[in-house]
Amino acid sequence: MEIIQSIESMQRRSCSLKRSGKRIGMVPTMGYFHEGHLSLMRLARSKADIVVVSNFVNPTQFAPTEDLDKYPRNFERDCHKAETIPVDIMFAPRNEDMYPEDFRTYVEVGEWGKKLCGLSRPAHFRGVTTIVLKLFNIVQPDIAVFGWKDAQQFLILCRMVKDMNLPIEMIGGDIVREPDGLAMSSRNKYLTPEERKDAVILSRSLKEAREMIERGAMEADVLKERIRKMVNGAQYGRLDYVEIVSRETLEPLSRVQKGESLIALAAYFGEARLIDNIRY
Amino acid sequence: MEIIQSIESMQRRSCSLKRSGKRIGMVPTMGYFHEGHLSLMRLARSKADIVVVSNFVNPTQFAPTEDLDKYPRNFERDCHKAETIPVDIMFAPRNEDMYPEDFRTYVEVGEWGKKLCGLSRPAHFRGVTTIVLKLFNIVQPDIAVFGWKDAQQFLILCRMVKDMNLPIEMIGGDIVREPDGLAMSSRNKYLTPEERKDAVILSRSLKEAREMIERGAMEADVLKERIRKMVNGAQYGRLDYVEIVSRETLEPLSRVQKGESLIALAAYFGEARLIDNIRY
Repeated sequence: MEIIQSIESMQRRSCSLKRSGKRIGMVPTMGYFHEGHLSLMRLARSKADIVVVSNFVNPTQFAPTEDLDKYPRNFERDCHKAETIPVDIMFAPRNEDMYPEDFRTYVEVGEWGKKLCGLSRPAHFRGVTTIVLKLFNIVQPDIAVFGWKDAQQFLILCRMVKDMNLPIEMIGGDIVREPDGLAMSSRNKYLTPEERKDAVILSRSLKEAREMIERGAMEADVLKERIRKMVNGAQYGRLDYVEIVSRETLEPLSRVQKGESLIALAAYFGEARLIDNIRY
Repeated sequence: MEIIQSIESMQRRSCSLKRSGKRIGMVPTMGYFHEGHLSLMRLARSKADIVVVSNFVNPTQFAPTEDLDKYPRNFERDCHKAETIPVDIMFAPRNEDMYPEDFRTYVEVGEWGKKLCGLSRPAHFRGVTTIVLKLFNIVQPDIAVFGWKDAQQFLILCRMVKDMNLPIEMIGGDIVREPDGLAMSSRNKYLTPEERKDAVILSRSLKEAREMIERGAMEADVLKERIRKMVNGAQYGRLDYVEIVSRETLEPLSRVQKGESLIALAAYFGEARLIDNIRY
C-alpha cells in the first residue's frame, strides 16, 4: 500500500490513473479504523480498480467545544488494517496543507445541515461537505463509499454530489454492529464499561421500533415516544433527538412510509455522543 | 462547432476528451458576446487543445430586483461569433437542468463576497461561485479563462479553485475597451446615447488615477476622492463605490502598493450598473 501525504502528489497520481482508464473507488475516513470502515473499503474494492482511503481528522467539522483533540488516532494500526483489504493508496494529508491560514471557501447544503444532528452541531455538516468536496477534487474518484451509520451525512453528500454535478457514483454501506447490536463507532472508545453496556439500548430501541412498525404501528409520534422512553430509561443514556424523516427531503414524516423513511437518533452516554439509525 | 445542451452529454464528452489526453480550455460566459468575450476565447484557444465556452445566464447571481429577465441574449449571433475563434464546443445548458426544484447546495468564499460589489449585491458572488463550480465539474477544464473586467469575481474564483483543490489553471484576460475607453460589457446595451457618452468618465477617472500614481500620489484617500468627484460630476453618473484593495487579501490599502493593488469602481448610469478597474 502506498501512503501519500502531499496533495499535489495525490492529485497527479489520480490524474494519471484516470488517464490510463482506471476506475478509482474512494473511502473518505477520519481513521481509527474498525470493522465498519473496513466493510466500506471492501465495498470499494469490489467496485473499483484502485481503492484510495483518505485518513484525515477534519477540524472544520468539530465545534470548538467538541472532541477534536481527543478524537482517537492510530495511523500505524490503520495502515496495517487497510493493507488486509487490500487498499492501494492511503491519502493522509497534513492539516496545514488542507487548511492554509487564508482558507475561506465553504460548501453548504442549505437547511439540510441544520436538521437532526445539525441542531446540536450547527457548523458540523458545512465542515463535512467542504472537506469531502476538497478530497473529491484531489482524489477524483469515480465511486465514493460512505457508511449509512452517518445517515444524514450520507444524504447530504449525495445531495451535494447531485447539485454540484460531480461525476461520482455514491454508495452507502450498511451499519456494522458489535455482537450485542451497538453500532461500531470510533467514539465508542469514550465509553466506560458501564456506559458501554448501557449503550446497547440505542440499537435495541430501533429494533423495537422496527418490530412495532412490522406489527402495524406507523405513527411517528408513537414510535418516537417509545424510543425516547427506552433511551432515557437507561441509567447513563440521555437522548439528544429521535426523528423520523423522509430520506428524500429530510422532512419529518408523521407516519412511517415504507422504503422512504429514516429513523435516526443521537444520545449522550457520559462524554460520548453516539448516533444510530434504521431505514424502513 | 458543436452545441451541447445536456449536462450528461457534456460531462461524457469531457471525460472522453480527457481520457484521450486533450487539454480542455474553458471560458464561462453569460452570452451576448462582445470583443471582451472573444479575446478570452482566443486566449483559451492559444493554450488548450479543445475550447469549451459555456453560455448560461445564471439566475442565482441576480437578486430578485436585478436585471435577470432583461439581460441581453442572442444565442444565434453568439454561435456565429464563437465559430470565428474557432471554439470547439458551446455548452448551453437549460435552467431547469442546472437548478432543479430541489437544488440546495451553495459555495461561498466567506467575507470576500461581501466586499466591493458584494455590498450592493450581497448574494451575487455566492451565485457566481456556485455556478462556476458546477460548470467546472461538468466541463472539467484544465484551464479556465475569465476577464479582469470582473476583477472581484476573478479573484474570488481563483481563491475558490485554490481552497477547493481544483486541478485547474486560472487565467485572467485583460479588459477590452471601446475606442473611447469604456470597458466592454453586455450591460452597455442599457445605456441611452447620452448616458453612453457620459459613461466614458469611468475609464477616464481610472486613467487619471494611474497618472496621479505615476506622478507619486499613492494615498488611497486622495485617489478615491478624485475618482469620486469625476464620476459624480458627470451628468448621468452616480458612483456606487470606489475602493483600492490588495489583490491578495481584498483588504483596503491606505497607499497604493505597486504590483499588488486593484482600484475598482462601480457606478450607475441610468438603469445600468457598470464596473471598471485598473491594476497597479
